Amino acid sequence: MSYFDINKVNYEGPKSNNAFSFKYYNPEEKLGNHSMSELLRFSVAYWHTFTADLSDPFGVGAAERDWDSLNEMEKAKARVEAIFEFMEKTRIDYFCFHDVDIAPEGASLKESNENLDVIVELIKEKMDQTGKKLLWNTTNNFTHERFVHGAATSSNAEVFAYAAAKVKKSLEIAKKLGSENFVFWGGREGYESLLNTNMKLELDNLATFFKMAKSYADEIGYTGQFLIEPKPKEPTTHQYDTDVATAHAFLQKYDLDKDFKFNIEANHATLAGHTFQHELRYARDNNMLGSVDANQGHPLLGWDTDEFPTDVYDTTLAMYEILKNGGLAPGGLNFDAKPRRTSFKQEDLILTHIAGMDTFALGLRVAYKMIEDNFFENIIDEKYKSFNEGIGKKIVEGETSFKELEDYAFNINTINNASDHLEVIKSQINQYILNINNKD
Amino acid sequence: MSYFDINKVNYEGPKSNNAFSFKYYNPEEKLGNHSMSELLRFSVAYWHTFTADLSDPFGVGAAERDWDSLNEMEKAKARVEAIFEFMEKTRIDYFCFHDVDIAPEGASLKESNENLDVIVELIKEKMDQTGKKLLWNTTNNFTHERFVHGAATSSNAEVFAYAAAKVKKSLEIAKKLGSENFVFWGGREGYESLLNTNMKLELDNLATFFKMAKSYADEIGYTGQFLIEPKPKEPTTHQYDTDVATAHAFLQKYDLDKDFKFNIEANHATLAGHTFQHELRYARDNNMLGSVDANQGHPLLGWDTDEFPTDVYDTTLAMYEILKNGGLAPGGLNFDAKPRRTSFKQEDLILTHIAGMDTFALGLRVAYKMIEDNFFENIIDEKYKSFNEGIGKKIVEGETSFKELEDYAFNINTINNASDHLEVIKSQINQYILNINNKD
Amino acid sequence: MSYFDINKVNYEGPKSNNAFSFKYYNPEEKLGNHSMSELLRFSVAYWHTFTADLSDPFGVGAAERDWDSLNEMEKAKARVEAIFEFMEKTRIDYFCFHDVDIAPEGASLKESNENLDVIVELIKEKMDQTGKKLLWNTTNNFTHERFVHGAATSSNAEVFAYAAAKVKKSLEIAKKLGSENFVFWGGREGYESLLNTNMKLELDNLATFFKMAKSYADEIGYTGQFLIEPKPKEPTTHQYDTDVATAHAFLQKYDLDKDFKFNIEANHATLAGHTFQHELRYARDNNMLGSVDANQGHPLLGWDTDEFPTDVYDTTLAMYEILKNGGLAPGGLNFDAKPRRTSFKQEDLILTHIAGMDTFALGLRVAYKMIEDNFFENIIDEKYKSFNEGIGKKIVEGETSFKELEDYAFNINTINNASDHLEVIKSQINQYILNINNKD
Amino acid sequence: MSYFDINKVNYEGPKSNNAFSFKYYNPEEKLGNHSMSELLRFSVAYWHTFTADLSDPFGVGAAERDWDSLNEMEKAKARVEAIFEFMEKTRIDYFCFHDVDIAPEGASLKESNENLDVIVELIKEKMDQTGKKLLWNTTNNFTHERFVHGAATSSNAEVFAYAAAKVKKSLEIAKKLGSENFVFWGGREGYESLLNTNMKLELDNLATFFKMAKSYADEIGYTGQFLIEPKPKEPTTHQYDTDVATAHAFLQKYDLDKDFKFNIEANHATLAGHTFQHELRYARDNNMLGSVDANQGHPLLGWDTDEFPTDVYDTTLAMYEILKNGGLAPGGLNFDAKPRRTSFKQEDLILTHIAGMDTFALGLRVAYKMIEDNFFENIIDEKYKSFNEGIGKKIVEGETSFKELEDYAFNINTINNASDHLEVIKSQINQYILNINNKD
Repeated sequence: MSYFDINKVNYEGPKSNNAFSFKYYNPEEKLGNHSMSELLRFSVAYWHTFTADLSDPFGVGAAERDWDSLNEMEKAKARVEAIFEFMEKTRIDYFCFHDVDIAPEGASLKESNENLDVIVELIKEKMDQTGKKLLWNTTNNFTHERFVHGAATSSNAEVFAYAAAKVKKSLEIAKKLGSENFVFWGGREGYESLLNTNMKLELDNLATFFKMAKSYADEIGYTGQFLIEPKPKEPTTHQYDTDVATAHAFLQKYDLDKDFKFNIEANHATLAGHTFQHELRYARDNNMLGSVDANQGHPLLGWDTDEFPTDVYDTTLAMYEILKNGGLAPGGLNFDAKPRRTSFKQEDLILTHIAGMDTFALGLRVAYKMIEDNFFENIIDEKYKSFNEGIGKKIVEGETSFKELEDYAFNINTINNASDHLEVIKSQINQYILNINNKD
Repeated sequence: MSYFDINKVNYEGPKSNNAFSFKYYNPEEKLGNHSMSELLRFSVAYWHTFTADLSDPFGVGAAERDWDSLNEMEKAKARVEAIFEFMEKTRIDYFCFHDVDIAPEGASLKESNENLDVIVELIKEKMDQTGKKLLWNTTNNFTHERFVHGAATSSNAEVFAYAAAKVKKSLEIAKKLGSENFVFWGGREGYESLLNTNMKLELDNLATFFKMAKSYADEIGYTGQFLIEPKPKEPTTHQYDTDVATAHAFLQKYDLDKDFKFNIEANHATLAGHTFQHELRYARDNNMLGSVDANQGHPLLGWDTDEFPTDVYDTTLAMYEILKNGGLAPGGLNFDAKPRRTSFKQEDLILTHIAGMDTFALGLRVAYKMIEDNFFENIIDEKYKSFNEGIGKKIVEGETSFKELEDYAFNINTINNASDHLEVIKSQINQYILNINNKD
Repeated sequence: MSYFDINKVNYEGPKSNNAFSFKYYNPEEKLGNHSMSELLRFSVAYWHTFTADLSDPFGVGAAERDWDSLNEMEKAKARVEAIFEFMEKTRIDYFCFHDVDIAPEGASLKESNENLDVIVELIKEKMDQTGKKLLWNTTNNFTHERFVHGAATSSNAEVFAYAAAKVKKSLEIAKKLGSENFVFWGGREGYESLLNTNMKLELDNLATFFKMAKSYADEIGYTGQFLIEPKPKEPTTHQYDTDVATAHAFLQKYDLDKDFKFNIEANHATLAGHTFQHELRYARDNNMLGSVDANQGHPLLGWDTDEFPTDVYDTTLAMYEILKNGGLAPGGLNFDAKPRRTSFKQEDLILTHIAGMDTFALGLRVAYKMIEDNFFENIIDEKYKSFNEGIGKKIVEGETSFKELEDYAFNINTINNASDHLEVIKSQINQYILNINNKD
Repeated sequence: MSYFDINKVNYEGPKSNNAFSFKYYNPEEKLGNHSMSELLRFSVAYWHTFTADLSDPFGVGAAERDWDSLNEMEKAKARVEAIFEFMEKTRIDYFCFHDVDIAPEGASLKESNENLDVIVELIKEKMDQTGKKLLWNTTNNFTHERFVHGAATSSNAEVFAYAAAKVKKSLEIAKKLGSENFVFWGGREGYESLLNTNMKLELDNLATFFKMAKSYADEIGYTGQFLIEPKPKEPTTHQYDTDVATAHAFLQKYDLDKDFKFNIEANHATLAGHTFQHELRYARDNNMLGSVDANQGHPLLGWDTDEFPTDVYDTTLAMYEILKNGGLAPGGLNFDAKPRRTSFKQEDLILTHIAGMDTFALGLRVAYKMIEDNFFENIIDEKYKSFNEGIGKKIVEGETSFKELEDYAFNINTINNASDHLEVIKSQINQYILNINNKD
């Protein structure tokens, strides 16, 4: 049976009118020593693409999917078929899932685990057949009503235990499927109100939970990269892993900063009041850029819209950070994005991924060219040149003092700052984008 | 004397590395029957470009200008010289000002008016010599401390009178200089708090003020277009002309909607929670799109940053609305934008305008091509086709009723909605932008 | 059978430790000529209190309700029993509902209507028995997937017809149950993106829809007040009835402003960037304040949280506007509010309403005292006194001109503005609140 | 000469109509072992109260001050007289300043330092005479145009040196005047755009700067507490000390977390998307709560409004955190707040401080009563009781593992979570506030 009645999507170049073609993503094309597919490491998100129904707080599911009428386990199996066909046709090499995305929860934890075992076996077979790989898996410890007060930060110790058992199982699945990373997104780890929250106890417990997770991974020999995914709010009013810096403070405090990197989501960055690039840069500067949830938000809306990325400014700057990071591997670009509720047809799953892949491929092309030209590097070198010699060099090397600096300052006649010409830089970025099609 | 030590800025095309050239703006190039300069009608803003010092709430002026050391009247004269040289070199045909931008306030209203007379005479000479034109003028009824409680909505009747006298003078200047439009931006017409505000009285007074202004313009035979410029907040917590719809409600209520159109500013739109395109569309749909303050805001900041427009998505959609409006004339595209405080050199005035002009020119090229292709029109026609016949046609023509519609609804078997494929549309817009350079 | 195992809630005064008592709401207590229950006209919202399951975008329903296990029609009947018991025990006199709240949708429109008929009959019996009244009803034209593109503004004419048929039925229910008002909340009347939206056609259609609704009400002799409920965003990116001013512009344009008033929701006001008081004041000043959806949002969150009102500043200023409006009748204070997801017990339905009722009752007491003292009125009279005589009086009466005002302005020596002392006013409001308990 | 023509402000209790009296602040009144003045440690901010002119980006200064017409040094001396009279009359014991607040900058750094020496001497005399104390001083390294690119994070090494020299001088002043704390607010330490920013170099330099500051303080024997004041944006688009957690990450990374605590400002907290209480709690939980900048923002505005605190909910929760912290000493409550521009009279300086002091005094009274009653403590104890025994105790003590927790989870039959009843808690807070006046 086929779920997507189209041919494998081909690169047809920027002039193509075929909606089911790539305009910028040419997987095998080399930029330097690496192919575009190696540099982009695209991944499909099980939940948004194969489990979600496009409901919203004011409307029921609008998605029309071939597997809608099946029973739960049949549906789970159909989705496995569908995602592997999807990856084949869209030329995506990786996928990601939460435990509950792939198999229905049973009446008990044991039954849930048994359901997982059936589907994991099926996924493993498909992976072996196709060569597709698991970028990361994670545990959904937030949807079920038992997690109403959180999971590792629940006020109920039994819930902590239950959540731990679920992560244990997920780590075993990660090991079995060779997951390259393992993600922790906070879910309901946060608070509705401080009026009845023991924030200190909850954060201590969260650290304990992470330590046990790391310890169990070591015990079973699972060596995938551990990633925290920050988000500032939603579902809780305050999410503990607010942004990269906040989670960095937490990891340092509990001596966990060597064990975790970050999975950075564009729309979570903007909800936190930062640009996507800022979160990537912060992580990169601290050697903690692990993976990316590729999407975009709406700048005028106050919730996570998880739109497919179509803004080439954002993807260019993201790819700049990623290339300067030496790539993302073992992380990748996971489309944590969903079609708009008004894009409810099954074919929209393909079309939206093409939109996202092409926009990131275009961003890659532009960023690659900029790095070839040392575009940003030249700007930075010129701007900070005063730190390469004299008093500037002493400052950078920590070999001066307030007294020496005061002496120096007393002898300055006039301080001449240079203009940043930021508007010119933005204008030049437009040129880079526009000229990428025009190589003569 | 020359203030800008460069040659007239030339169009050099998208590959040029010359910062002092246009990459997309080619004034005489025709798109259809009109030249780019006719379609764009660029204008320079006296205040941001020639009066402002780039101070912010945490810092003094950083701008370095040749006229900084002159006395007030000499400075005013130097600025006249400078703006006409600036327009010549940047190939901008229009300019805009507030009364206080062009001449210093005197010790009395009479003295202020005398100062204005001197400078207006000078400007008139320059206009006659150069053919440059006044897009609009306006009155600054907010900076001076007398306007602490507003102007036409002040709680102090004397302030109302003073504000009226200033607008009267401005209308006379508009008449004398042939200003094509006359703008009212609310300034402090709004409130800090409702706790001590008689909003009804203040709005009644504002309407009275507008009526007297219109009446005086008629009396002196000034026929320029009257424009209201909406803004939601800043300086007051609530500005009465919040957005286009709010001002539209006001104008209708007071029977002023035939006498005013709108001057729409991009950054004011986003501060109000709307896209720039939304405000343009609302005005266009109501035949009230008068002129545009071309700038952009920062999506993560909550105040008016008045940045030069460099986002080609925004300028493309703005130019789409403007072209569908049949252009803006007698309005235009006024750069109500200032260099970043870190772009403080005099040459930045040129460079930032080039950035803005090129981005709008690029947007114009893309929008023009889209309209040639009926890109959006085809999408809309297909989407709403059910209103062209049958029950849809009756709805549009107002020839049906709830009873008939209920009968119709009882007989519907299944409702089949179509997917919007919004992501594909966004992807195609990227193609339009990228292909604009590549015409083969 | 009893759903709420408590006694009728009694007023026990501000010192009571009994969670199931009123601390400030004393229904029969008179303030002037009216009892508190007459002044407050509280209403319970069927949807949040009896239908909602406290799910959120990241979690399934957490609510524990006695009727959870029943089949759909039995559940519908149980809820009728429950709401009338609830109103009895909480001393709430009014209720509100959407059509889909009270009866399950059937396989066809006819079957849905038959389900409604059964339940409406049951409700009518209960109303007759208890004297409880319907504050307003409305139509849910947004949850079902057929409304994916809107209802009266759908791009599909069949959906328009279906929506009309549903409103027709709701109007018949309103007539039968003597509903004092009929509400239109926009649901999905708005747009996701302007890129594929014909805003003008959609708004024209919306006006046509309203006109047909009014016409049908007249036809069947339904005389309840028609209300529009503004909201700026969610579920759509842009909701057409953005705020009171925007909807006022719309109603004026289509000559509907005599037929509609507003149902104002606190949390919708803040999402639109306004205070709750602003929206109430705007409506009051235009004689369009119809009813109130009493809730509160979280100032740091960007979505509609619909919290029970517990902020006495907000309820005081709301009650001030309402009292100055001469009350809300035939409108009322409907608790469009839901327990937090973490307040998932059935008893929380009672406790949350007590919290909301007490906070509004407290606000009423404070506002009533302020009006007795002419607190705000004295501030306003003093502040605007210059408009009571001389040039100020001429301005207000429209009997002056720019020329006369200029003459006047030329003769002003010094303008003396008065300080607003806003901080003192806020401090005095704190005193009013604190002293309300302390009447000696 | 007297600048404030009133008597010393007295406590007159909550019924007083005298605007120049305290209604809740009774300095000598004991709550437990401490007087209110000891618990509140109020401080006046030199800049907002004695230097600022109430200008805003759209208006010149509106403040009317007795010293407006003096020359710079005379003005500086008059302000010293005025602030000590002000502290005497308002019964405020502490004050705070930036270097540039107290003395004019000279033509050179040396001259600036000489001006400082003159005024510091005068201040010292006044302190000795009156017993008033310096809560903290700080350095303004952001207003002058030399700091256009920042100070310790400037791209210009000379500016770094200049900034260091200024902080050196400020530390010497701190030593001389016995300043109990020394504050670093980031000013322009941040970036306008990442496009031309070397964030890593800038943050490394910032850490170097802090280390040199600490080292110099040690060298001169200055032992006051060092404080960082976080703010997320304004003046720069991204401020490096975004919020407490971000600064905590920075301090840990550079091994500075033992040398610094935080000065937390209410309005900065909300600009960062947090509640004031959240920032206080985070700091308290990490033993880093140093001092407080007491003000409030407007929840609907996106910039720092620095309003005097009048919201009793905020001050109650702030005082709860402060009391649980064991007080703030050596920190205090500094009114980093300015009168609204419409409160421009000199007497408004007194009236606004009374408003702020009374609101904090009221918050203190309420919080103190809550703590006496173990109000929040009882809620927390009940909510988290499952961590006091069994598996919960093992979790808290770090004595369990994923394997044991899985075993435990397999044996859970049903998880019973408790409702949080958050709405009841909020309702009870209203009772606490309302009953504080009514002690019988």
